[in-house]
Amino acid sequence: MDDRIAKQVAFALEIDKEKNVFRQTHLSGHGRNENDAEHAWHMAIMAYLLKEYSNEPVDISKVMIMCLIHDIVEIDAGDTYAYDTEGLATQKAREDAAKERIFSILPEDQKEEFTRLFDEFEECRTAESKFAHAMDNFQPLILNNSNGGGDWKQHNVDAASVYGRQSKTKAGSEKIYEITDKILKENIAKGSLRSDP
Amino acid sequence: MDDRIAKQVAFALEIDKEKNVFRQTHLSGHGRNENDAEHAWHMAIMAYLLKEYSNEPVDISKVMIMCLIHDIVEIDAGDTYAYDTEGLATQKAREDAAKERIFSILPEDQKEEFTRLFDEFEECRTAESKFAHAMDNFQPLILNNSNGGGDWKQHNVDAASVYGRQSKTKAGSEKIYEITDKILKENIAKGSLRSDP
Repeated sequence: MDDRIAKQVAFALEIDKEKNVFRQTHLSGHGRNENDAEHAWHMAIMAYLLKEYSNEPVDISKVMIMCLIHDIVEIDAGDTYAYDTEGLATQKAREDAAKERIFSILPEDQKEEFTRLFDEFEECRTAESKFAHAMDNFQPLILNNSNGGGDWKQHNVDAASVYGRQSKTKAGSEKIYEITDKILKENIAKGSLRSDP
Repeated sequence: MDDRIAKQVAFALEIDKEKNVFRQTHLSGHGRNENDAEHAWHMAIMAYLLKEYSNEPVDISKVMIMCLIHDIVEIDAGDTYAYDTEGLATQKAREDAAKERIFSILPEDQKEEFTRLFDEFEECRTAESKFAHAMDNFQPLILNNSNGGGDWKQHNVDAASVYGRQSKTKAGSEKIYEITDKILKENIAKGSLRSDP
């Protein structure tokens, strides 16, 4: 095997570990916790399916690859729950170290390409990254809603925190935000999401 | 929620079930069985990563979406192991019924689009579908090889059967076939894959 493809295959094998990184979200049907690879797969299909609702035109292959790789750093850094304030404080440093280690397995040009895609997603300034973030929020939302908001109840999450996070959804898609808002209001009304701070 | 987006969200929720369809392949590190969603996620990233080795130029967004959706019918039809001759005999009928049911959840235009993509993958005649099939073979191969060929040993698979399946890999990528051949020869040499029929 020549050096280039050997590095690419080593990277392909390394990322297999993402299937062992579990999230707080539960699968529909009150299932087990979801892992990062499943979440990314689901987001990428949803991006393709819902691309007509992006606020701006997007290069869908770029959105899909961003969705697919956006959690790779969690192989080392672990999943940080969106409403875990302690974890969030150290998240950036842990993920930066992971990004350097994992993408360094690749040939240099692809290390640069994957790092650029990863950073573009994180910075959330381009049309593609905004729409990918909308999917990152909307995918667990529909699972959680299908389970009666159980993930919010379990973590005693308040509505203001959830709405704070949804500003990225709005930046990516007004239409998806409109559906999100409707789902959140229903969950507040039935007590799955508490409205007091 | 208007009717169109309601159908799209219903489809997005339905495909969540693919995370509960388990395959014969085991995760690296002698891990648990892999599920279809994880397999599709891995294939789609590998397609992007290895696209330079496609025999023909490909529209990578089409390859990725094909990889992502190619096993959706297994939500109803279940996974059929590549070397299960009895299961293979009824596979087409089971998967056709599943395709009709699951893609009918979508709005009509997207039902047609997803069905067309699914069929294009199955027919394996275009550059994109051939390369996607190469990934469908190569992804479990690298996992199984990393585990010492345990999946072949467990099912007592013979080399001729594995090589038969790899003709699709060659049609998609001569380079990936070359690596595949090298890996298979190593596994035959160490007895993980039996060479007698």
